[in-house]
Amino acid sequence: MQTRDFGPRSFRSIFKWGAPDVFYDVDDRLRTFICDTLGLPEKHLTELFHPGLEDVPELPAPDLPEHALARLEDLVGADNVATDDYTRTEHCSGSTYLDLLRLRLGKVENAPDVVVYPRTEADVAGVVALCHENNVALVPAGARSSVTRGLESPRGGVCLDLTRHLNRVLELNETDLTARVQPGMLGPAYEAWLNARGYTCGHFPQSFEYSTVGGWVAARGAGQQSTYYGKIEDMVLALRCVTPRGTLATAPFPRCALGPDFDQLVVGSEGTLGVITECTLKVWPHRPQSMLPLTFMFRSFEQGVDTIRTLLQSGIGRPGVCRLSDPEETEIAFLLDGLAGGAIDKTLQRLGYTPGSRSLMIAATEGDRALATVTAARAHALAIKRGGLPLGGKPLHAWAKRRFHDPYLRDDLMDYGVMTDTLETAMTWSDLPRVWRGVRAVIKARPHTACMTHISHAYETGANLYFIVIGPMDRENPIRDYRDFHRQIIDAVVEHGGSLSHHHGVGRLFASWYPEHVGETAFAAFRGLKAALDPHQIMNPGAYGLDEQ
Amino acid sequence: MQTRDFGPRSFRSIFKWGAPDVFYDVDDRLRTFICDTLGLPEKHLTELFHPGLEDVPELPAPDLPEHALARLEDLVGADNVATDDYTRTEHCSGSTYLDLLRLRLGKVENAPDVVVYPRTEADVAGVVALCHENNVALVPAGARSSVTRGLESPRGGVCLDLTRHLNRVLELNETDLTARVQPGMLGPAYEAWLNARGYTCGHFPQSFEYSTVGGWVAARGAGQQSTYYGKIEDMVLALRCVTPRGTLATAPFPRCALGPDFDQLVVGSEGTLGVITECTLKVWPHRPQSMLPLTFMFRSFEQGVDTIRTLLQSGIGRPGVCRLSDPEETEIAFLLDGLAGGAIDKTLQRLGYTPGSRSLMIAATEGDRALATVTAARAHALAIKRGGLPLGGKPLHAWAKRRFHDPYLRDDLMDYGVMTDTLETAMTWSDLPRVWRGVRAVIKARPHTACMTHISHAYETGANLYFIVIGPMDRENPIRDYRDFHRQIIDAVVEHGGSLSHHHGVGRLFASWYPEHVGETAFAAFRGLKAALDPHQIMNPGAYGLDEQ
Repeated sequence: MQTRDFGPRSFRSIFKWGAPDVFYDVDDRLRTFICDTLGLPEKHLTELFHPGLEDVPELPAPDLPEHALARLEDLVGADNVATDDYTRTEHCSGSTYLDLLRLRLGKVENAPDVVVYPRTEADVAGVVALCHENNVALVPAGARSSVTRGLESPRGGVCLDLTRHLNRVLELNETDLTARVQPGMLGPAYEAWLNARGYTCGHFPQSFEYSTVGGWVAARGAGQQSTYYGKIEDMVLALRCVTPRGTLATAPFPRCALGPDFDQLVVGSEGTLGVITECTLKVWPHRPQSMLPLTFMFRSFEQGVDTIRTLLQSGIGRPGVCRLSDPEETEIAFLLDGLAGGAIDKTLQRLGYTPGSRSLMIAATEGDRALATVTAARAHALAIKRGGLPLGGKPLHAWAKRRFHDPYLRDDLMDYGVMTDTLETAMTWSDLPRVWRGVRAVIKARPHTACMTHISHAYETGANLYFIVIGPMDRENPIRDYRDFHRQIIDAVVEHGGSLSHHHGVGRLFASWYPEHVGETAFAAFRGLKAALDPHQIMNPGAYGLDEQ
Repeated sequence: MQTRDFGPRSFRSIFKWGAPDVFYDVDDRLRTFICDTLGLPEKHLTELFHPGLEDVPELPAPDLPEHALARLEDLVGADNVATDDYTRTEHCSGSTYLDLLRLRLGKVENAPDVVVYPRTEADVAGVVALCHENNVALVPAGARSSVTRGLESPRGGVCLDLTRHLNRVLELNETDLTARVQPGMLGPAYEAWLNARGYTCGHFPQSFEYSTVGGWVAARGAGQQSTYYGKIEDMVLALRCVTPRGTLATAPFPRCALGPDFDQLVVGSEGTLGVITECTLKVWPHRPQSMLPLTFMFRSFEQGVDTIRTLLQSGIGRPGVCRLSDPEETEIAFLLDGLAGGAIDKTLQRLGYTPGSRSLMIAATEGDRALATVTAARAHALAIKRGGLPLGGKPLHAWAKRRFHDPYLRDDLMDYGVMTDTLETAMTWSDLPRVWRGVRAVIKARPHTACMTHISHAYETGANLYFIVIGPMDRENPIRDYRDFHRQIIDAVVEHGGSLSHHHGVGRLFASWYPEHVGETAFAAFRGLKAALDPHQIMNPGAYGLDEQ
């Protein structure tokens, strides 16, 4: 690890995950991976690829209706309205691989004209009404970690940053085990607040450190322990969403029969219908001591899949963390962890756990300790019957230590001109093998490209697949090149029966696939909703392709 | 039990739950209840109240656009089109208390002009298109057990009866544990089909014997074991719904991030958006031997509530059946079961379980037997700590024996001129005490009226309350009288924080409360959906008040 100077107004200070002055020192293991596996020349390890040290440029002056700026300042206070180039550039995109590429290349596209920091729901309602009346585009923003081009302002207008003020827990109800939370609260602050009172939020996406409660809900996200705690849509009991048509507010009934589930209209709407201003979420007793390891090596991916499927379907209790790496991911992990060729590797090989087919499962129980003990015993028996070799607590602890590290690594790899992205999909157990094979086939057809795949969220009826793609970047045309490659991958996902997304969302990245993927009638329903709640089509224009003809 | 002659074209053959020729013999216990508790004169037990023995009357001739009948016959075959008075009367309503009253009084209101029995989804699509083009109202019907006036044809038109042909399981996927089912399949047939293959549907509403899969989904229903298996919305993985705008078809992804949850738009839509033609539902291994009893007597309702809440929140496993009777329901059960004043009663009283405050809990584990054993042990400890007295398996078996009997009893009581209805709501644990007290206060303010209340569906964050109201009928103006009383009860439900419904749905019965209950913006969203999918407003007119100005 080394640090370098960078400007406080630099692109790097905007796109870098974590401290912007950190550059990763390539160790021998990563060198082997980059040079041998990806086939990149050694010199790439010393020549940084557009590290983004330049300051952001001057942008065209804000283009808003007359008096709009003054009225915004009246509404929220002058301190909470920003039109400077840096703030506008900061809010021009999320953290999609393409977003990061653009920023590294010094391209500022789709910046808002103004960034507004509302202090209250009334502020939000005022800004929404102002934008609605004046036909000004409005894009709500949390911590801007979208990886689906969910955050862009193609029509300029207002970006509403909810993180400055709307970032508190409003109420903890210990009778109902619920918390009322504002949308701009970051994951670590929320979890720390709950932990201090003996509870946990149960939602830990890889973006945990730089994502917000509102973003989780807007994108229909999932945390790494979702197999026990559920996806965010399973945690939302009620919400408030300020739409141009008025405020949609639901009550925290545990279940009801009141027509369509209005919470489930807003969850995943990605700012296209309104601005989420409050969420009532489930919370749980915080019991980290109940995390008993369920870690196994299997001789094949199929054996691992069969184990997780049976575990989920047998009713013997759900693990929280529930991951299964495919053979390529298992081998790259062995390489990067310095295990390849060592004593453990040799023992495993002697026992028939062969590189190229063996697959690593890392899971852990949750909840009540006594029940977790039974679940763990039953799960061990089940895994061993399917050829699994128990590996104890070490792999779980190693995983836990670096559970939020991948987004940092992405920037590090991009610093060395390495293309790296993640894609994720969900499917039934029946369809999983062909999605896995079909998508891998497309990715592996690209020379020198690594494809690490795992299951990280499992259900009775199916699971997700998460693909990490790492390969050489086309340094001349990195954006066009990646777009073409990405299109092929997503075509394969859909062709083989996977969903366009399991938890990243749709944004603008998948908008061209979306109408066909959900079908014309469902898309018409979504547009009908939009027409009812956002008749002037001001909310997050371009997302889902809802406002295109 | 006695049987009497009745006409095959009689009203009774339409409204009676189960065999229409059965009349209940009032035994001494019921006599005590009716005469003492409800204060009705003895003579009511011999003078039947409008038993509905008359034949249905002649109805006005069907009023359909020219050639419509012929085109319907072309579409589905002449055998599958009925315009006779009996069939139209049969399809004029569901089984709401008010529906039953009307039929007993010989009133035929809101009958469709024609009843059509589609053979295939293509038939459904043809009828929907025909109705859409000609602006003819269309009401889908299952087994017509709606208790919310969900099934009426105020604009005449077509009633689409799905039970004759669309009543099969299309596919069982044993890898994914899912079944593709047609909407017109009745509960017992579906469960028997699954049981024969080692599975269960997990969904057992009180109406199980005369309700359909499509009805469960359309009404957002719940079964008696929902605390373990979930409500129907938790079981639906995918569906097909033929709307005037086209067919909305979802894929059975276990979870996804694709914008609004389109399944959850159709679930609970009660035929207002389209006709459900197929559902993909979760199924489970059939393991009745895992039902270990969790039956306890508590000294108070509050102790029972606290036990169930803690059980659900502790993560020690979920029961399937999970019921808690309030003191009045507990005492009436003691009376009708012949336990009142007996040895058990005396022992209980000696131990401080006093009539008027004691409350009976009947629950049972589900799923994996080993895990169920742990759950049962932990639940016992938890209940005993809260003053619960374990009662063993008998109360559970007694409940199981008569779990589907209440709808029969309703007709029996109405035969004797007794008003009887059920109301149900959901709320957070925090709000439960005041909903229970507030609603009871309104019901008990009516002279000689029994109010039996129980929890039958429990969640981490709240539960439902189910009120059974039994009292003397106003024999002169039974409909107007009940409407007034019902309005007061529902006002109290809403005022104290309950939902309009937990699992019966909204239909026309709650339409006047609905917009305010969900809020203007949510109602606008629902209407936006309707405008998109059913632009001519032909589907189930009147339900939810969607098509009223």
